[in-house]
Amino acid sequence: MVAQTQVHPPSPERFFETIHGYQQTACLKAAIDLDLFTAVGEGNHTAAALGRRCGASERGVRILCDYLVVVGFLTKEGSQYGLAPDAAMFLDRRSPACIAAATDFLLSPLLTDSFKDLAAAVRKGGTTSGETGTLAPEHPVWVEFARAMAGFMTLPAELIAGLLRADAGEKWKVLDIAAGHGLFGITLAKYNPNAEIVAVDWPNVLAVARENAQAAGVISRYRTIPGSAFDVEFGGGYNLVLITNFLHHFDPLTCEKFLRKVHAALAPGGRAVTLEFIPNEDRVSPPIAAKFSLMMLGSTPSGDAYTFSELERMSRQAGFASSELHALPPTPQQVVISRK
Amino acid sequence: MVAQTQVHPPSPERFFETIHGYQQTACLKAAIDLDLFTAVGEGNHTAAALGRRCGASERGVRILCDYLVVVGFLTKEGSQYGLAPDAAMFLDRRSPACIAAATDFLLSPLLTDSFKDLAAAVRKGGTTSGETGTLAPEHPVWVEFARAMAGFMTLPAELIAGLLRADAGEKWKVLDIAAGHGLFGITLAKYNPNAEIVAVDWPNVLAVARENAQAAGVISRYRTIPGSAFDVEFGGGYNLVLITNFLHHFDPLTCEKFLRKVHAALAPGGRAVTLEFIPNEDRVSPPIAAKFSLMMLGSTPSGDAYTFSELERMSRQAGFASSELHALPPTPQQVVISRK
Repeated sequence: MVAQTQVHPPSPERFFETIHGYQQTACLKAAIDLDLFTAVGEGNHTAAALGRRCGASERGVRILCDYLVVVGFLTKEGSQYGLAPDAAMFLDRRSPACIAAATDFLLSPLLTDSFKDLAAAVRKGGTTSGETGTLAPEHPVWVEFARAMAGFMTLPAELIAGLLRADAGEKWKVLDIAAGHGLFGITLAKYNPNAEIVAVDWPNVLAVARENAQAAGVISRYRTIPGSAFDVEFGGGYNLVLITNFLHHFDPLTCEKFLRKVHAALAPGGRAVTLEFIPNEDRVSPPIAAKFSLMMLGSTPSGDAYTFSELERMSRQAGFASSELHALPPTPQQVVISRK
Repeated sequence: MVAQTQVHPPSPERFFETIHGYQQTACLKAAIDLDLFTAVGEGNHTAAALGRRCGASERGVRILCDYLVVVGFLTKEGSQYGLAPDAAMFLDRRSPACIAAATDFLLSPLLTDSFKDLAAAVRKGGTTSGETGTLAPEHPVWVEFARAMAGFMTLPAELIAGLLRADAGEKWKVLDIAAGHGLFGITLAKYNPNAEIVAVDWPNVLAVARENAQAAGVISRYRTIPGSAFDVEFGGGYNLVLITNFLHHFDPLTCEKFLRKVHAALAPGGRAVTLEFIPNEDRVSPPIAAKFSLMMLGSTPSGDAYTFSELERMSRQAGFASSELHALPPTPQQVVISRK
């Protein structure tokens, strides 16, 4: 925020930078398409060497790399490029934390098309992609999501397992709402041999979750309920209900009604664990959580990035006794733990 | 640059922010389409009031405005939005320096299409939009450019007139290369009643320049040469040749050859005035000039953002005795003045 509070004369630079934001997207996507970050990590440091490795022109690579230095993914010493720490960890495909594959989902036309005429979504107050945007039943985007975003969610899933002290080994019955890739539940089961997971999602998506549970060696404690989380019977007696990246798709009343259903499924003392982009009460900080609201305007009829006080109110009105906010650094998301 | 040199653990935030860069473009375009900045400037400060004024939903406006606060175009106090200084000067249509109209050109498909598959341009080393990209003879984009970018170029045109001391009233014969809107030459003529301007551009573009010269009251000292600047006869005895936002479209040898033609057209002691995005010798700073190179990769066969040492070398090999670099704050561009 320092730069914004400094006194400087008005300048067209901010307009220029912002109107060309799409080139940042294009540049990062091109680098990932060319697997440039892996190539640098492997020891190719010049535009010439990278061009050979990536099957691209030296001139094109040089210009692309310089741009990536400006936006902070590469370093440059003389004409030698290197990986900045964020790229080494998250964009080199040899890194276990690599999230490059998430690009396919994040830039899928279903999400990006709404932004071609965002003014129309602002006029309407919600997505212009059909009635329901990404929320149509069994929309194939969620299978793509489940496959593409697993890497992206590894870190928050691990952090949540730590936050909940999964490794203490308490007997847990866990309901994983809109499980997708299933990683949140699966990670709890991995750390806690006494955890049983029940995953809810569309049938086509649950197939991906089940694959991941199998690969993680927890399939014997993994059960699935196919269907809409709003319609299916959850059963009861859960110690934990995971509500990860779910509430932001819906309006507050729908969220509250849904949380009432979650509350009913919990055992006494049970906890709802809500992972979200949660802006501060001013709604304009921190940047990523605050900006996420626009993503929901573009891609859903009435979703939003809710503040903690909004989530706390929804939980309270759904019957929860208390709610606590937890940051999950270094991720841009936060967790609300609400106790029955 | 402070943020980048701070020590912090790797984070996926930079990936997330950059891959969603297209939403910055969409958000700013939506605000301009809705004329939101003018509406705020007129005294509408709440999402409700702005929604009424812009014909948009309160919810959509609130989310759009919050995003615009995050990226620095609006301020927010409680639920009251205001114009940040950059927006008040450059995006409120009531401001004489408003550059909102430039959006149409900057986001015209001809420029943006190349970025849909930037990896292809990196592989090839140049634009994938046909043989010549934006450089096709009489391409209609340049008429659009001439109309849309005039506001954007008012400030640099004024600054160049100041730098050259146009108001000193020397007898000048000025050649304006690829004049476009014509503002650079016209502004010199406005400040210097003893300046005669000769503008070169495609015939369809010169019509716009002539309109502007008429409006500025300098048409009696305004002459035009229709055609490609590479092919037409310039004549000779010029005191100044303006080469504004032109060289970046071409490879260095083409630039050098062109500068030789300019050199020949100048009177002894005459000056070539080159306006460009000029990155530092490291090619990765300052941000806007450095990033401009990618724009040329995407939209031209072999254009680039040249450093001062590259421009100086081209000028020297074209016969110029000396070249000097001048910043043009607060614009992101710089001027090279080369003397015959």
